[in-house]
Amino acid sequence: MDSRIHLHELIAQVKQRNPQLVCLQIPEGLKFNVTEIEDAFSKENIPVITILDPSFGACDIADDKAKLLGADLLVHFGHAKMMHTAQNVIYWPVFYDFDDRFVQDAVAALKKDTFFSAHKKIGLFVTIQFHSNLEKIRKGLEEGGFEVHTGKGDLLEGQILGCDASARNTISEKCDAFLYFGDGYFHSLAVAYASDKPTYQFNPFTKELEHLNAYREKLLRVRSGLINKAMDAQTFGIIVCTKKGQMRKTLALKTKAMLEEAGKKAYLFCMDHITPQSLIGVQCDAYVNTACTRIAIDDAQNYTKPMLTPAEVEILVGQRTFANYKLDEIRHFGTKVE
Amino acid sequence: MDSRIHLHELIAQVKQRNPQLVCLQIPEGLKFNVTEIEDAFSKENIPVITILDPSFGACDIADDKAKLLGADLLVHFGHAKMMHTAQNVIYWPVFYDFDDRFVQDAVAALKKDTFFSAHKKIGLFVTIQFHSNLEKIRKGLEEGGFEVHTGKGDLLEGQILGCDASARNTISEKCDAFLYFGDGYFHSLAVAYASDKPTYQFNPFTKELEHLNAYREKLLRVRSGLINKAMDAQTFGIIVCTKKGQMRKTLALKTKAMLEEAGKKAYLFCMDHITPQSLIGVQCDAYVNTACTRIAIDDAQNYTKPMLTPAEVEILVGQRTFANYKLDEIRHFGTKVE
Repeated sequence: MDSRIHLHELIAQVKQRNPQLVCLQIPEGLKFNVTEIEDAFSKENIPVITILDPSFGACDIADDKAKLLGADLLVHFGHAKMMHTAQNVIYWPVFYDFDDRFVQDAVAALKKDTFFSAHKKIGLFVTIQFHSNLEKIRKGLEEGGFEVHTGKGDLLEGQILGCDASARNTISEKCDAFLYFGDGYFHSLAVAYASDKPTYQFNPFTKELEHLNAYREKLLRVRSGLINKAMDAQTFGIIVCTKKGQMRKTLALKTKAMLEEAGKKAYLFCMDHITPQSLIGVQCDAYVNTACTRIAIDDAQNYTKPMLTPAEVEILVGQRTFANYKLDEIRHFGTKVE
Repeated sequence: MDSRIHLHELIAQVKQRNPQLVCLQIPEGLKFNVTEIEDAFSKENIPVITILDPSFGACDIADDKAKLLGADLLVHFGHAKMMHTAQNVIYWPVFYDFDDRFVQDAVAALKKDTFFSAHKKIGLFVTIQFHSNLEKIRKGLEEGGFEVHTGKGDLLEGQILGCDASARNTISEKCDAFLYFGDGYFHSLAVAYASDKPTYQFNPFTKELEHLNAYREKLLRVRSGLINKAMDAQTFGIIVCTKKGQMRKTLALKTKAMLEEAGKKAYLFCMDHITPQSLIGVQCDAYVNTACTRIAIDDAQNYTKPMLTPAEVEILVGQRTFANYKLDEIRHFGTKVE
């Protein structure tokens, strides 16, 4: 476990702050280790309470809960800082550190791919879990003969999220192709969606290289189908969330007005836990999600009714063409209702 | 629908307050009507957002969410006021109003029961949904020859909750038996648990009268089994909740100390959404729930590990005898961390 969370280093940092009570907010993947983590703090006589409600990102930060519990420090595991919080917070990534040999092998695999090796200028992106390897991968690619750009948007150098690929925009003109080094498709698609440049994903766990453009086309067909299905919908439920980094009330109100102008009925529903089950019984023909982008994109097939993004509503009402499809990005995090 | 929620009357009250934005917090049972409810407000040009995350009582009040959404009024459906909130709140019960004939038939059914009709002095209790019928039922019982007491604890006259049967204590000495008029077992057991007096439940939907003492004995056997099973547990997860009316951090800390003194390991977990699924992966042998009493009582069989109440831990460590078993009551609601 310690190779992934560097627990002793964390505890040293926590001790320096001399807190009275620490709240730990852990991602689902660390639940198996939660007693071990609490034990390590107890051994140092640091009182802790672990928040076990799922957290899906630093947008979903439990600073208000930590405050209610009387904690004077919150350790948020697995994600990097996104926004200001009233609470004292240590952001502590879950680390996946690769050795030089691993990176050399990865670069060799990339070079072996006919399509990838045809590119010269590569835009390189990672998620926070793999961020500690960024310079190592850059060096490996440069030694392999590539010119590498990382870029910095609202997040760390080279870091992207499924809802924030702003790093891409800062280097797009310099690149022939993009490479995302990490797992899952949510984050990499944020790069692929808004670009007609070849986008690749190297998964460090499976060691497989994927060409994302075909995957992107497939997903765009799914989205197009959902938008078309929602054209016939008369009633729309617009979901707004109160999680600090996902609260987009202004966008929800704008989307409601847009739908009403197009002759649809629209309802505003606040939900922090958005699942197909939680919509059972609600009589709407389609939904629009203004909370985490992932809900409409990753979970679409779990909902019996179309679940659209706000940008897809623009297409539905004719204010945007499908050719200008854009992913639902949440770039401007804040603590205030907008 | 209007017979259950008196929507026009509610809207008249809301209009008097002239709010800029109203949040509606509805129980699961009204989800089917949520679009209809929003329509009624829209017709009067009152902007609303409906909070669709489940609410299990006025202890689970979304005043903080309403504030984040910028609402200046919250309508909380289905439950009566329990505690102070910073937010402007209208508590609006879901009504089940019975006519005189219904009450006469119910009293006739009670009188026909050999055991019930042997009692003279009846303690009468209802939950908020049936509270509008309280005087009618009292009158019916009195006309049927019974002496009727209702009592008032922390809640309304004659009102009980599964976690608050304080009304019972105020009239216990005057009564031969107790009658709960309502559905479900959670609330009625709060009366039956802490009493050796005969306790009856008349379900207005099924029109059946049940003798709860046998049911209570059965449940006590289940609880005894869980406590015995937990005797062998080495590690305990103590669940603490940040919902305004369920926050019992002091009790959680006290329970932790008690378990540690008995040679057990104890961990503090904060959870607002407590389900068997949310504990998957956590390596504890048993759990103690300091949040909603219902989680340990109603849902016990859904958990693979024993889920105890704090009072049951007192039995486990030998500080209370099983003969003095008490239900986990949450009587002193507050907004402060205790």
